[in-house]
Amino acid sequence: MEIIECVPNFSTSELKAVELIINEVKKTRNAFLLDYTFDDYYNRLVVSFVGDKKSVVEAALNASFKALELIDMRTHKGQHPRIGAVDVVPFIPIKNVTIEECVELSKKFGETLAEKSGVPVYLYGEAATSPERRDLDWIRKGEYEKLAEMIIKPERKPDFGPAAFNPKSGATITGARKLMAGFNVNLGTNDLKIAKKIAKALHSKKGGFSNVKAMAAFIPEKNITQIGMSISNFEKTPLYRVFELLKVECARYNVPIVGSEFCGMAPLKALIDIAAYYLKIDNLTEDRVLEIAIQNAMEKGGNFE
Amino acid sequence: MEIIECVPNFSTSELKAVELIINEVKKTRNAFLLDYTFDDYYNRLVVSFVGDKKSVVEAALNASFKALELIDMRTHKGQHPRIGAVDVVPFIPIKNVTIEECVELSKKFGETLAEKSGVPVYLYGEAATSPERRDLDWIRKGEYEKLAEMIIKPERKPDFGPAAFNPKSGATITGARKLMAGFNVNLGTNDLKIAKKIAKALHSKKGGFSNVKAMAAFIPEKNITQIGMSISNFEKTPLYRVFELLKVECARYNVPIVGSEFCGMAPLKALIDIAAYYLKIDNLTEDRVLEIAIQNAMEKGGNFE
Repeated sequence: MEIIECVPNFSTSELKAVELIINEVKKTRNAFLLDYTFDDYYNRLVVSFVGDKKSVVEAALNASFKALELIDMRTHKGQHPRIGAVDVVPFIPIKNVTIEECVELSKKFGETLAEKSGVPVYLYGEAATSPERRDLDWIRKGEYEKLAEMIIKPERKPDFGPAAFNPKSGATITGARKLMAGFNVNLGTNDLKIAKKIAKALHSKKGGFSNVKAMAAFIPEKNITQIGMSISNFEKTPLYRVFELLKVECARYNVPIVGSEFCGMAPLKALIDIAAYYLKIDNLTEDRVLEIAIQNAMEKGGNFE
Repeated sequence: MEIIECVPNFSTSELKAVELIINEVKKTRNAFLLDYTFDDYYNRLVVSFVGDKKSVVEAALNASFKALELIDMRTHKGQHPRIGAVDVVPFIPIKNVTIEECVELSKKFGETLAEKSGVPVYLYGEAATSPERRDLDWIRKGEYEKLAEMIIKPERKPDFGPAAFNPKSGATITGARKLMAGFNVNLGTNDLKIAKKIAKALHSKKGGFSNVKAMAAFIPEKNITQIGMSISNFEKTPLYRVFELLKVECARYNVPIVGSEFCGMAPLKALIDIAAYYLKIDNLTEDRVLEIAIQNAMEKGGNFE
């Protein structure tokens, strides 16, 4: 049986809208909600759910139609870059499914969404139709605010839907990518300039780690700053290494690290790499973790009653 | 459905014997072998398997009968304390089963083993019939070599089987306990005296952490020493804290840590605690780990096809 994860990002943190969007996932047969997080400073809702091919596309569409109905981009503000109400909808292979199959799912999702809602849709990641479009940030350049002038450029023509600005909903980006790790680190400073310097040191395009995107944000209710990171290949660029460099850069500015969190689910492999590094463990693999070994043994055994 | 883990320890590292003992577990319906490790310096085989109530007892008995047939304690030498061919057989609650039910399983195992093989059996841990007997080391005091004189003392009367020395097989200890973590750390020194001092600093009875047993061993083929630890409650005494103290003591003697390994399976909770400590993660729980969240969601959902 195949398992696909879908992690749609919606441009809202309004309680009622969050609840209604989430409900669309919960209502979909064979789709299973894993997690959702939202906050005021990003003004963004990140949902994570799994399902088989049919159900992930169905749940992603239902949640997106609800989000398009409820969100009006004309009044949206937030610290996270975004281009539309249904900002980005990645499909991620987890088990018994290839990245190519996830590309097909994203195309199906994008085509249906554009057809039924009239919202322009771009394909990114493994589903991209040109090399530049592999990069989410390239497509999102100028964000919602400049979309009206960007969308009419030939190189920014949507993959599905009209090449025309949709004031209420902006545009949507969908595609397929490998599992990545989202990790936020809170800094004991309210100085966004320092936080931005630290984020820059880690960011791939600014000379940092090749698989890391990092941004700085201010969190008003705590009066601190946060480094938000996504690590696209956490096997090649393990989290402990990113964190150790972050510690080095923080020390430079005398900024304490006051806490951190995974944004979305924590992949087991990322935890294993952390434990293996700090405790110098030679032979730790996923199938040496009790809970996973039991799962694997029982799946193989089959007739455990 | 209930899941019980059983981790029997047998006094052999002879390849053919290992294979035949393991096969008894593999052959048992609804019992699933997770792992087995053995080595010359401990001269000990540690097997880990899971199953439901019926199958764990059945697999434990079958493997034990085979071990009693193949192992002769009169010629056994090894650095790990042991009292018999089937040295210790703990039953551990994993899912949908209480520790009390595991006590019953261990009694059933012990009684049947004694009855069919004539080997004296002691109950320990949660199954102990007196306070001293909760402690494995108390029962194992004097080891196999002094068992002949110990077994006739009233306070060392076996719980099942004859109060008489069995030269070929020694005695067996069985019982129920909670999940614990086994962790071995290799030291870049061949000086066993130093390794023993470091082990002593960690060991509960010698002033160390209350949930830690630690011993030192020499590994001839690598010409190094090893600290072997078992942490009976790794939630109260997390592994990172034990490891950090170990680092402190190693620094005192200028001994490098050259590697480490889990002995048996790594409990997920232990990995989470390590990651949370070193990366200062505030809110990491088992259900925030992707693979576990998927498993839980699908079990709850039921009808995922």
